[in-house]
Amino acid sequence: MEKYSRNQRITGIMKQLIENPNKVINLNTFTEKFNAAKSTISEDILVIKDTFIKLGMGRVETTLGAAGGVRYICGMSKMERGEFVSFLCQILSEEHRIIPGNYIYMTDIMYNPEIIKKAGILLASTFINKEVDYVVTVETKGIPLAYEVAKLLGVQLVIVRRDNKVTEGTTVSINYVTGSSKRIQTMSLSRKALRNGSKCVFIDDFMKAGGTARGIINLLKEFDSIVIGIGVLIEDIEISEKLVEDYISIVEFAGINEEDTAVIYPSKYFQ
Amino acid sequence: MEKYSRNQRITGIMKQLIENPNKVINLNTFTEKFNAAKSTISEDILVIKDTFIKLGMGRVETTLGAAGGVRYICGMSKMERGEFVSFLCQILSEEHRIIPGNYIYMTDIMYNPEIIKKAGILLASTFINKEVDYVVTVETKGIPLAYEVAKLLGVQLVIVRRDNKVTEGTTVSINYVTGSSKRIQTMSLSRKALRNGSKCVFIDDFMKAGGTARGIINLLKEFDSIVIGIGVLIEDIEISEKLVEDYISIVEFAGINEEDTAVIYPSKYFQ
Repeated sequence: MEKYSRNQRITGIMKQLIENPNKVINLNTFTEKFNAAKSTISEDILVIKDTFIKLGMGRVETTLGAAGGVRYICGMSKMERGEFVSFLCQILSEEHRIIPGNYIYMTDIMYNPEIIKKAGILLASTFINKEVDYVVTVETKGIPLAYEVAKLLGVQLVIVRRDNKVTEGTTVSINYVTGSSKRIQTMSLSRKALRNGSKCVFIDDFMKAGGTARGIINLLKEFDSIVIGIGVLIEDIEISEKLVEDYISIVEFAGINEEDTAVIYPSKYFQ
Repeated sequence: MEKYSRNQRITGIMKQLIENPNKVINLNTFTEKFNAAKSTISEDILVIKDTFIKLGMGRVETTLGAAGGVRYICGMSKMERGEFVSFLCQILSEEHRIIPGNYIYMTDIMYNPEIIKKAGILLASTFINKEVDYVVTVETKGIPLAYEVAKLLGVQLVIVRRDNKVTEGTTVSINYVTGSSKRIQTMSLSRKALRNGSKCVFIDDFMKAGGTARGIINLLKEFDSIVIGIGVLIEDIEISEKLVEDYISIVEFAGINEEDTAVIYPSKYFQ
């Protein structure tokens, strides 16, 4: 049977860890794959663990016992985080982004995997110690970000629809009033989409008054489920009275200045 | 200045490679990070490269020259691929999945990061040698899969909307006729969403007659752009006359049997 060097085992273990965030991988997976003793694999993991701390790139945890194993928990060094948030502020305040109606065009940012991956790490790492069952979002622009957070937390994504699709089976629909423009909107979710009694994190691209977030809280009540965390990329701080408490944002939008560009600051959560 | 052992360097290099698929990372990034000579880093990468081949988990390529460096290209061993496709066939033919109207309920599958990550590797690896500028999808169910493929190809995602949103600025809308039910539908895309003259890959969850795919081809013509590849998770082979050629699917749907379950086979592309 084939033998592997420590370098080779570390390469293989790293791939599996990074590709399965927040999932406990049993040590037997590696002892079998690399035809090595448990003590050998444990030493490999110790090297990996120390390097994660040294390089500030998240952490690797080992859990003992029968269901024990090793798992990778996403994270970012303070320096990298600072650089990323500054970069976000910079691109969001680019000149060409203000479109008629005084909206910020940010679709390209929300659909850029390099950016969304990092934003996902920031948001996911704040919820990592809670027992999250699902990450919930409402279509469309926040889906890639919500997907990243779900992946990093190792849970299923749930997407609430604006309409009612035949391919969803029985659905529950609620009407809600948006907090900023006071319009009535509908959102619906398939009965099959989540188990009753779940704990959910709601992720979205932009929060104005928080009407959508409150709508989600009410919709999830129909599934006997609760929202235990809310995370958005941008928060509009011009609307100071929010309809929800306890949310985190990565950057803050403070209106449009005289040069017709958005005024964007790092939010207090990631300074 | 801090020194790192080979094991530690490999741990750090692996993290950066796996998290940045299909992106060339300059060797200087690593020589600076680890305070090591280029020859040392080259040896580290050689170990990684060989291990990828040995374990059949994609590949690592080095390119020479000023813009040279190293990049990770996603892949899956034949065995893992076979297991994954069988697993997909099995869960898609579960009893409870047929919903009124004879649709397969597959939302949970399309929003499951563990499944979508693997499906993404299968589709992305077939387009990896083409010069892809964007991955395009149409909302909503295919978005996570399209996002994975975009991330693995190292390109931007573009999401075509069913409606017209104020936050998208100037949009181009087209009407198209669905291939199976002959309904007229609209799709629209922001003018800012992609550069003219781009090569795109279209990703979706399900293909019936291919009306949506043909609609995308026509929409992209308005941006002087072309579709150079189409990939779907499931293809309906009951509709044999497709409106588009040259597409790949992971599994085939061959109708519903007497036990009221979907008949699903591995497609010819991934056998």
